[in-house]
Amino acid sequence: MDDSAPRARGSMFAWLVGASQALGLASVVLTGVWMGHYRGGFAWDGSTLEFNVHPLCMVLGLVFLQGDAILVYRVFRNEAKRNVKLLHGIIHLLALIASIVGIVAVFDNHNVSNTPHMYSLHSWCGMATLVLFCIQWVMGLLFFLFPVASSRIRALYLPVHVFCGLALLIMSIGVSLLGITEKLLFSIASTYSKFDPEGVLANILGILLVCFGVLLGYLITKEEYRRPPNPEEESLSVHFKTLTEGRSPTTP
Amino acid sequence: MDDSAPRARGSMFAWLVGASQALGLASVVLTGVWMGHYRGGFAWDGSTLEFNVHPLCMVLGLVFLQGDAILVYRVFRNEAKRNVKLLHGIIHLLALIASIVGIVAVFDNHNVSNTPHMYSLHSWCGMATLVLFCIQWVMGLLFFLFPVASSRIRALYLPVHVFCGLALLIMSIGVSLLGITEKLLFSIASTYSKFDPEGVLANILGILLVCFGVLLGYLITKEEYRRPPNPEEESLSVHFKTLTEGRSPTTP
Repeated sequence: MDDSAPRARGSMFAWLVGASQALGLASVVLTGVWMGHYRGGFAWDGSTLEFNVHPLCMVLGLVFLQGDAILVYRVFRNEAKRNVKLLHGIIHLLALIASIVGIVAVFDNHNVSNTPHMYSLHSWCGMATLVLFCIQWVMGLLFFLFPVASSRIRALYLPVHVFCGLALLIMSIGVSLLGITEKLLFSIASTYSKFDPEGVLANILGILLVCFGVLLGYLITKEEYRRPPNPEEESLSVHFKTLTEGRSPTTP
Repeated sequence: MDDSAPRARGSMFAWLVGASQALGLASVVLTGVWMGHYRGGFAWDGSTLEFNVHPLCMVLGLVFLQGDAILVYRVFRNEAKRNVKLLHGIIHLLALIASIVGIVAVFDNHNVSNTPHMYSLHSWCGMATLVLFCIQWVMGLLFFLFPVASSRIRALYLPVHVFCGLALLIMSIGVSLLGITEKLLFSIASTYSKFDPEGVLANILGILLVCFGVLLGYLITKEEYRRPPNPEEESLSVHFKTLTEGRSPTTP
C-alpha cells in the first residue's frame, strides 16, 4: 500500500500531460479548420490566403511548440539533463521557425493589400512577444547549451530564464486571443453577435488555448513534477564549466 | 558588508512593488481618461455612458485590486498571518463588488440597446473568469478565514488556491486586453489603423496591463519574497483548528 501514492501521482501526471497534448493539438487543428474551411484556405501570394498562414503558424509555434518545449523538463525529468536541454532547444528552434514564417505571412499580406503595419494592440503585444522570444532563445543557447558564462552567472540567470519562459508562453496565448477577436471583428462583425458558426468555432478555439495555458502552467509550476536535484549531474556541470573556463582567454 | 545583500534585496523589492503600484494606478487612470475623455464620460441610464462604467470597474476590481490582494502576502510577509489573511479577503471583497458593478453596467447597456449578450470571446472568457473568481473567494473564505475543513484538507487546498489566484489574475488581464480590442474595433475601426490618439492611448493601456501582470507574477512567484515559515504560527493555527473541530457536531 506504501507505494500507491507516488503511483497515483504518476498516473495523474500522465493524464494531465495527455490532456494538455489533446488541448494543444485540438487548438492547432481548429485554427487550421477555421482558416481552411471558413477563410478559404492557404496560399503564399500576398492575398488573404497568405494571411491565413499567420494564425496557424503562430498557434503551432508560439503556443503548442513553445508549451511543449517547456513541458519536456517535466515529462523527461528523470532523463539525462543534457539530452533534455538539447530537446528543449530544438523544439524552441522549430517554434521560432514557425513563428517567423507566420510573421512574414502577415507582413507580406499587409504590404500587398496596403494595410498599415503595427497599429493594433495585437500587433504591439505580438511583436514584443516575438522579439523577447528570440532574445530568450539566444540567451538560453549562450547560457545553457554552449555555456559562455560562469556557473555563478548561469545559476543567477536560470530562475529568470524559467520565469520569462512561462511569461512568454502566457503572453503568446494572450496575443492569440487578441488575434482571434481582431480577425472575427474584421471578417464577420455583422453576424458574430448572431452566434455565427465561424464565431462560435473561433471562441471555442480561444477557450481551448486558455485551458492549454492553465494546464501547462499547473504542470510546470507544481513542485512535485519538478526535476529532482541530481548532485552528480550538478558537479559534472560545474566540472565541465571549469574546463571551459580553463580555455577562456580571460582566465589567467 | 555582510548584511548589504539582504538590504539590497529589500530595496529592490520595494522598488518593484512601487513600480507595480505605479503601473496598476496608471492603468486605472488611463481607463478613466479613455472612457471619460474619448467616450463621453459616465452615467447610470443604460446608455453607452453606462457601458463606460464597465471597463473602469473591471480594470479597478479584477486587475488592480485583485493583484494587490495577492501582493499583500509579499508586502506584509513579516506581519501576523491572521491580519494579512483578513486584508487579503477584504481587498478581494472590494474587487468582487467593483466587478459586479462593472458586469451589471454592461448587461444594463446591452438590454437597453438590444445588443445580444455573451456572444464574443471577451464575454465568454470574462464570465468564466468572474464566476471562477466568485468560487475562489467563497472557497478562500470557507477554507482559510472561517476554516470549516480539517488542517489536512486545508493544506492540500492551499497550493490549488494560490495557483488559481494567479491564474485568475492573468485571465483577468487577458480578458481586459480582449475588451480593449473589441471596444476599439467597435468604436474607431476606420481610424484605428491611422494611429488615432484614442487607439494609441488604449494600446498603451494594454501594454501597461501586461507589464503590471508580469511584474506581479515576478513578485508573487519569486522564492525569496515568499512569507518565511513560522512554526509557532503553524502550531497556533493547528491548535485553533483543533478547538474548532472540538465544537463541530461531527466530532465525537
